[in-house]
Amino acid sequence: MEQLKALLGEINDLVGAEAVLGWDQQTYMPKAGAEDRGSQLATLAKIRHEKSTCDELGQLLDDLKSYETHLDPDSDEACLIKLARRNYEKQTKVSAEWVGEFAKITTIGQSEWEKARAENNFEAFRPVLEQIFELRRAYADFFKPYDHIYDPMLDDFEPGLKTAEVKEIFSKLRPQQVELIRQIAEKPEIDDSFVYLDYSEQGQWDFGVRVLNDFGFDWNRSRQDKSAHPFTTSFGIDDVRITTRFVPNLGTSSLFSTMHEGGHALYELGFDHALARTPLAAGASMAVHESQSRMWENMVGRSKAFWKHYYPLYQETFRSILGNVSMEDYYRGINKVKPSLIRVEADEATYNLHIMLRLELEIAVMEGQLAVRDLPAAWNARMEEYLGIVPPNDAKGVLQDVHWSGGMMGYFPTYALGNLVSAQLWECIQRDLPNLEEQIEAGKFDELLGWLREKIHRHGAKFEPQDLVKRVTGSKINPDAYMRYLSEKFSAIYDL
Amino acid sequence: MEQLKALLGEINDLVGAEAVLGWDQQTYMPKAGAEDRGSQLATLAKIRHEKSTCDELGQLLDDLKSYETHLDPDSDEACLIKLARRNYEKQTKVSAEWVGEFAKITTIGQSEWEKARAENNFEAFRPVLEQIFELRRAYADFFKPYDHIYDPMLDDFEPGLKTAEVKEIFSKLRPQQVELIRQIAEKPEIDDSFVYLDYSEQGQWDFGVRVLNDFGFDWNRSRQDKSAHPFTTSFGIDDVRITTRFVPNLGTSSLFSTMHEGGHALYELGFDHALARTPLAAGASMAVHESQSRMWENMVGRSKAFWKHYYPLYQETFRSILGNVSMEDYYRGINKVKPSLIRVEADEATYNLHIMLRLELEIAVMEGQLAVRDLPAAWNARMEEYLGIVPPNDAKGVLQDVHWSGGMMGYFPTYALGNLVSAQLWECIQRDLPNLEEQIEAGKFDELLGWLREKIHRHGAKFEPQDLVKRVTGSKINPDAYMRYLSEKFSAIYDL
Repeated sequence: MEQLKALLGEINDLVGAEAVLGWDQQTYMPKAGAEDRGSQLATLAKIRHEKSTCDELGQLLDDLKSYETHLDPDSDEACLIKLARRNYEKQTKVSAEWVGEFAKITTIGQSEWEKARAENNFEAFRPVLEQIFELRRAYADFFKPYDHIYDPMLDDFEPGLKTAEVKEIFSKLRPQQVELIRQIAEKPEIDDSFVYLDYSEQGQWDFGVRVLNDFGFDWNRSRQDKSAHPFTTSFGIDDVRITTRFVPNLGTSSLFSTMHEGGHALYELGFDHALARTPLAAGASMAVHESQSRMWENMVGRSKAFWKHYYPLYQETFRSILGNVSMEDYYRGINKVKPSLIRVEADEATYNLHIMLRLELEIAVMEGQLAVRDLPAAWNARMEEYLGIVPPNDAKGVLQDVHWSGGMMGYFPTYALGNLVSAQLWECIQRDLPNLEEQIEAGKFDELLGWLREKIHRHGAKFEPQDLVKRVTGSKINPDAYMRYLSEKFSAIYDL
Repeated sequence: MEQLKALLGEINDLVGAEAVLGWDQQTYMPKAGAEDRGSQLATLAKIRHEKSTCDELGQLLDDLKSYETHLDPDSDEACLIKLARRNYEKQTKVSAEWVGEFAKITTIGQSEWEKARAENNFEAFRPVLEQIFELRRAYADFFKPYDHIYDPMLDDFEPGLKTAEVKEIFSKLRPQQVELIRQIAEKPEIDDSFVYLDYSEQGQWDFGVRVLNDFGFDWNRSRQDKSAHPFTTSFGIDDVRITTRFVPNLGTSSLFSTMHEGGHALYELGFDHALARTPLAAGASMAVHESQSRMWENMVGRSKAFWKHYYPLYQETFRSILGNVSMEDYYRGINKVKPSLIRVEADEATYNLHIMLRLELEIAVMEGQLAVRDLPAAWNARMEEYLGIVPPNDAKGVLQDVHWSGGMMGYFPTYALGNLVSAQLWECIQRDLPNLEEQIEAGKFDELLGWLREKIHRHGAKFEPQDLVKRVTGSKINPDAYMRYLSEKFSAIYDL
């Protein structure tokens, strides 16, 4: 067991080192440093892959089989062995040739995609995208027999979750969410023009830091910097970092991305220290991670209770813009529902439909039901069906996201699943903390954070996402709580 | 050859990754991140050591012996094989046990030293210092037969240089420098009280950036940040970083440290790109590196020509402090010679004596001529002899430097040798660029930088320091040019 921990510790150190290099690349690295940084990251990834698939690790995991039977299956050690075995088996099933080829094609894919998007030319991107999907099918082959060809990819992000489960969840969610948007569309449009004005960067930064402080951020163990795209990264339980960005004339961008990344960071900061330097010091899955970020961003940050407390300060900070905007109007403005073309700018009510569209398309291509060349038309048809709008071009349609160019099939559903989980947890929290709303209105979040730490954070990756959600909420991932949340919130705002 | 380059490239990537982690540790890392960072650095160092001493590398170097005979010995490939073989042979001679023990003891040593210095208690530090010297003697044993027990350590920082050469250089230098200081001591003291006032941080930062710009800093390939102790680091030829710090009420600190680190960085930025991702993309030695930093800091930054150009701007920036100080008085103030206790605050005329004292003591201990317990008394006696002052306590005496606690015997002489080399180069530059002074007076440094790039920078570590200095100046390292430089400069300032 000590040998296993030592080896996993070294692998973990390499993961942490790669994360530092990646963080620096996106925050402070001078432009010309990119080439050397690429070499450094490739070498670290290669060494990590060698260590993660080495015979010694396989042997250790075999030798531990009898030891394992005596452990409480919920114990740290049992969970560690189980996760290490899962990772080892997944990684050793995939050939080194595939890994090399995939790295090569997706690097080309990303630069081709950038060009194609800039030039609004899907056909230029199509050949490499076809190769990427082909490689993803070859990836699935390593895991035969599978229930569904999409399962192995989904499992990379949501351990244990099956395509059939995801399909069921979303087929239940979709009609309800489409119907909600239809109802809202019949109501008068909300004025949110004050969002698109010039909020000072320093004011945004200071307000974000204030909110992070109140959320329970520990600046001895974390920091915030600026980057082109906001992200959270971690180099260990005691060094978790977020970034934010300032978009000119978009006052909500830094505000909500800071709360969003703050939510991710609070999760990483909350892992039990007993899990340090092991693969258990990680989120249970991308969806569970996203449930944390979306909860702090939306359930907290877009709630009326939150703004009751913070609006006076916020209004004062940006007095020239918000001096004549009431708290009520501000609240309605930042919660305006309007079908739009771009996923990352979507509101709470429409966001999941963007995801479902992508999920359905990538599954259809994986299944061989849809050709890559037909993706643009299929995209537009679904945009029309779900959101009632059609992109004017592919740059604002099928080419808008980086994920496929990077081979990240299986990633999209985690965003929507995260929303669902956040609402399931939120219902439990409201039950366990009956004064939650008053606490938020007072800018107090310690009980909320304490609940999350106890129920979710401290466990790290000990449990698979469905298992964890069931343990905490009593049910597996399902859309009911989220639909209740949306209905209640938007019925009040739109007087439905 | 391609295999060798690939393997050395990976080792180089690890060096670069370690440097990124080290840079972050000293600039932006939140406090609590130290423990994980320690693990990450230890793992990377372990992997790098394994790769640097692996049989495959030894075999490749053996296999290349016949190929090597056909190469021009000054070619990149020949120099690369030679340096790689040197490094491999040095590293494989040292046992893994010693490396582990040394890392352990010096880690303890540094924390014991910090405590001992704070408590002014040499005796508390003595036991671990004795162990460190003992380990250094054991280190020398790996390289038997040697001419002198200090040679293997000196060779780590100054490839090819012998203790006998260093002793000869310094025995020639010391009496001349002592005599110069004696003469200066008879002259009236210069008023430099304006140095010890409150220079605004932003003003210092902006002036430093302006000077770096003019020196030829390329911000696409480098950056400056703040840290507790200024340093230069590099993650490749196209990503070289410096740091500075602001010491309250010490207006020269950031000013000259920025120029000093800028000089180191210009060296690293000037390596030929053909040397990228090889161990040749490094300074020829610590002394040659220091010659670059000291040249930009002293020959340029403390020259009258420099201040003729920059003083109006500098005076304007800090008008409340310098409004009534003439350029001439400012120039004299920043060049004031006064024997002082602390090496890092020493002026140009006294600095080398601090070094010689340390060098003589560490050699004497290594030789077994001096016991560690007698170091404090020996230190104080030499301070009296060379500088005419005696430390009031060991904290300001024998305990002031971190080097011995980290096992860095052999490092001290490189500082003084760097000064000597800087003056040797400076004489050549003045010969080759007869308008140099006018150029500096005009804030123009491109010809100076071009000369350094051509003669020194581009070669990286292709040549050993004595060889490089001889190629460029016609002589090996010697103190004559430096003494001429000091005499001329301080005769004018002090009217000797």
